[in-house]
Amino acid sequence: MKFDFYLPVEVLFGSGRLYTLGEVAKRYGYRAIIITGKNSTKENGALDRAIRSLKKWGAEEVILYDRVEPNPTDQMVNEASAIVVENKIDYIVGLGGGSALDTAKAVSIVSSNEGYAWDYVNYPEGPRLIPYLNRPVICIPTTAGTGSEVNRYSVISNPKRKEKLVISHSLNYPKVAIIDPTLTLSMSPRLTAITGVDAFVHALESLTNKVENIFADDLAIRALRIIKEWLPVAVNEPENLTAREWMSYASMLAGIAIDKKRVALIHGMEHPVSAHYPNVAHAEGLAALAPAITAFNYKGNPQKYALFAEIMGYEPKPEKAVDAVVELLEKVGLRVSLKELGVEKEKLERLTEDTYMLSRGLFPINPVEPTVEDIYELYVKAYEGF
Amino acid sequence: MKFDFYLPVEVLFGSGRLYTLGEVAKRYGYRAIIITGKNSTKENGALDRAIRSLKKWGAEEVILYDRVEPNPTDQMVNEASAIVVENKIDYIVGLGGGSALDTAKAVSIVSSNEGYAWDYVNYPEGPRLIPYLNRPVICIPTTAGTGSEVNRYSVISNPKRKEKLVISHSLNYPKVAIIDPTLTLSMSPRLTAITGVDAFVHALESLTNKVENIFADDLAIRALRIIKEWLPVAVNEPENLTAREWMSYASMLAGIAIDKKRVALIHGMEHPVSAHYPNVAHAEGLAALAPAITAFNYKGNPQKYALFAEIMGYEPKPEKAVDAVVELLEKVGLRVSLKELGVEKEKLERLTEDTYMLSRGLFPINPVEPTVEDIYELYVKAYEGF
Repeated sequence: MKFDFYLPVEVLFGSGRLYTLGEVAKRYGYRAIIITGKNSTKENGALDRAIRSLKKWGAEEVILYDRVEPNPTDQMVNEASAIVVENKIDYIVGLGGGSALDTAKAVSIVSSNEGYAWDYVNYPEGPRLIPYLNRPVICIPTTAGTGSEVNRYSVISNPKRKEKLVISHSLNYPKVAIIDPTLTLSMSPRLTAITGVDAFVHALESLTNKVENIFADDLAIRALRIIKEWLPVAVNEPENLTAREWMSYASMLAGIAIDKKRVALIHGMEHPVSAHYPNVAHAEGLAALAPAITAFNYKGNPQKYALFAEIMGYEPKPEKAVDAVVELLEKVGLRVSLKELGVEKEKLERLTEDTYMLSRGLFPINPVEPTVEDIYELYVKAYEGF
Repeated sequence: MKFDFYLPVEVLFGSGRLYTLGEVAKRYGYRAIIITGKNSTKENGALDRAIRSLKKWGAEEVILYDRVEPNPTDQMVNEASAIVVENKIDYIVGLGGGSALDTAKAVSIVSSNEGYAWDYVNYPEGPRLIPYLNRPVICIPTTAGTGSEVNRYSVISNPKRKEKLVISHSLNYPKVAIIDPTLTLSMSPRLTAITGVDAFVHALESLTNKVENIFADDLAIRALRIIKEWLPVAVNEPENLTAREWMSYASMLAGIAIDKKRVALIHGMEHPVSAHYPNVAHAEGLAALAPAITAFNYKGNPQKYALFAEIMGYEPKPEKAVDAVVELLEKVGLRVSLKELGVEKEKLERLTEDTYMLSRGLFPINPVEPTVEDIYELYVKAYEGF
C-alpha cells in the first residue's frame, strides 16, 4: 500500500457560495481579472454576481477576459496573460466550464513567469517556477465534470500543431475553489450529460489504471456511486438541486482522483480527436471511445473492473464493465461513434500516430499496455460504433 | 450540502518510506531538530534510521529533543522552542506518537513567533501569524491513531493549571507527513488498542456531530469500516503488516475528518480526565467515556448513529450504536471504567466544571447539547462502568 497525496486547494463547497468570492478574493489584492467564456456566465447572471461580489469587497479594478472557447488554445492563454501583465493584475478568477478554469490556471503560470503557454506543457517540476510568486487563482466551476478546480491540469490546444497537451504542474493548482452547485442549474440536459460523462470517465480511468493510490481509489469509487445514481437524474430534471449538488461533489472527487492517479487510454486517444476536430466536445470524444477501450482494458485489471461493474449495478465480473459503460452512456443520450461526431475515416491513422507521439506516457499505466496496432484498431471500432 | 476542505499537508504513505525523510527534508534547509519520546523510537531503531537519512542527504546538524512524554506539556514545548531558536534550526521533525507530533507542530509556532506555548491555545485565525515564516514541520507517526500528522491540532497540557487545551490553527499543519506503517509494527497489543481506539473515536465523533461536511463524513465512514475489520487483527497479530497498513490509513482518514468537523463530547469530557490524571492515556479515557456518551447522544442524530451501527455490523438502528461501541472496546481489551483508571469519585464535580469551562465550545456541535447536570451524570456512569 503506497500513495502520495497533496491537495493545496482550499475548497468552499455549497449552494449559493458564489457570494463569498469577494471576501475570499480580498486576501489576494485589489486588481482582478475574470476569465470566462463568451455567453453562458453572462446569460445566467453568474458573471454579474461575481463582479458585484468583488466590488462589494473592495476590488478596485475587475477586468474581463471573455474570449475563452471550448478546447482553449495556447493563443488565448498568451493573450489573456499579456492583459494580466499589462494591467498589473493581482489575482485571477476562472469562472465557467473546464475551458475557462484551465485557461485561468495556465494564465497564472504564463503571466507570472517567462515565455508562452506552449513552453509549459509537460513542464517538469523543479526549482525554476517559484511558489508564492505565481498569481493566485480562484476557480468557480459552472459545470460539473471537469474537476479542474481541484487539480494541477490545464488542457491546452495548439491549433497550428493540431495538438492538445497538458500543463501538469504543482504550481498550476488554484488557491481556492468555490464550488456552488446552483451555478450548474442552467446547464441544458445535453451539457449536463457531456460534462457528467467527463467526470464519469475520470473516475473510471483513475480507478482502473495501474497507478497505486488507495486514497484516490476510494474517492473514485465514491464518485462512481454518486454518478450512477445522480447523473441520470440531473440530465432528466435539470432543476433538481439535490442532483446538481451530488454531481458537483462527484466531479470534485473525480478531479482529485485524476490529480493523484492521472487518466489512461480513453483520455489519451480522445485528445487527438478534439485537437483535430475542435468542434467535438471533449466528453463526446470520451463517450465514443470508452466502450471499445473498456472492452480492450478489462483483462488488465480484472479486480478493479469487477468492482466497477458492481458499483454500476452489475455482477462483479470484469467483462460486465463494458455493459455498465454502455448503459450509462445510453441513459444520458451520449451513445455515439466517432463517425457520428464527424471524424473522417482517413484521419484514423493520423489520430493513431498522434496518440503514440503525444500520449504514450500514459501507455504504461493503462490497464493493458497498447501497441500502435491496438490503438488503430480501437479507433476503427470507436469509429464504426462499438 | 455545504462544506469546506483544506489540507495543505503533503502525504507520503507507504511501508518503508521513512527512508525518504532526508530527501524531503533537504528542501527545508540544513539544520534539523528531531522531537521524539524517551524510549520507543530508540528501541525500535526508527530514530537512528531518521538521523541516518537526514545525514545522508546533507543535513549539517541534527539536534535531538527526546524529552516528550504522553500528554505533553506547555513547558516541553517552550523548552524545545528555546533550543530551536538557540540553534537556528531550519526545520522540525516530529517522530513518534501523537505526543511527539503535537509537540513538534507547537514548537514550530512558538519558535517562529513571540511568546510561549500557552499563548497559542485557542489562538484565533488572523494576520498576526505569518504563513511561510513558520518553520516547516515533517511528521512521522509511529502509532496509528492520533491523525496529528494531517491536521491542525496540538493538544497541550498545562500541569500547573491542570488544563489540557488545543492549539488549533491553519499554521499548525505539518508541511509533510511521512506515514510508514512498518514503524507501527513494534507497538504492543495494548498500545495498538489504545491508539486504534483514538482513531475509532475520531471517526465516530466526527461522523455523528452536527457539523455539516459530507466529504469529512465519507472519510470517517471509510475509516470506521477499516477499523472494524482491521483493528482487532492488528491487536491480535502485531506483526501483521497488512493490518498495520490499513490502520495507518484509517487513522489518517479519521485525522482529516476531525480536522474538518472537530470532535465532540467524548473528547470534551476526556481532556479534563487526563489533565488531572496525566497517567491516564488519552484513549483509555475515551474508552471509559464512549459507551455512556453514545447512549446519551444517539437520539440527537439518529440517522448517523444508525449508519454507524450498520457499518459496525449491527442493524441500522441508532440505539444499536451503543452495543457497537461496547463490542469494539471489548474486542481490543479496552472495556474500562473511570474508576478502574484511578479516577477518584470526589473529582467528578471538578471534571464536570472543567468540561464546562474548557470544552463548552464543543457543546453546540455535540449530537445532543448537554447541560452541566448531564455532564456530571455521564461522568458518574463512566465512573461506575456503563
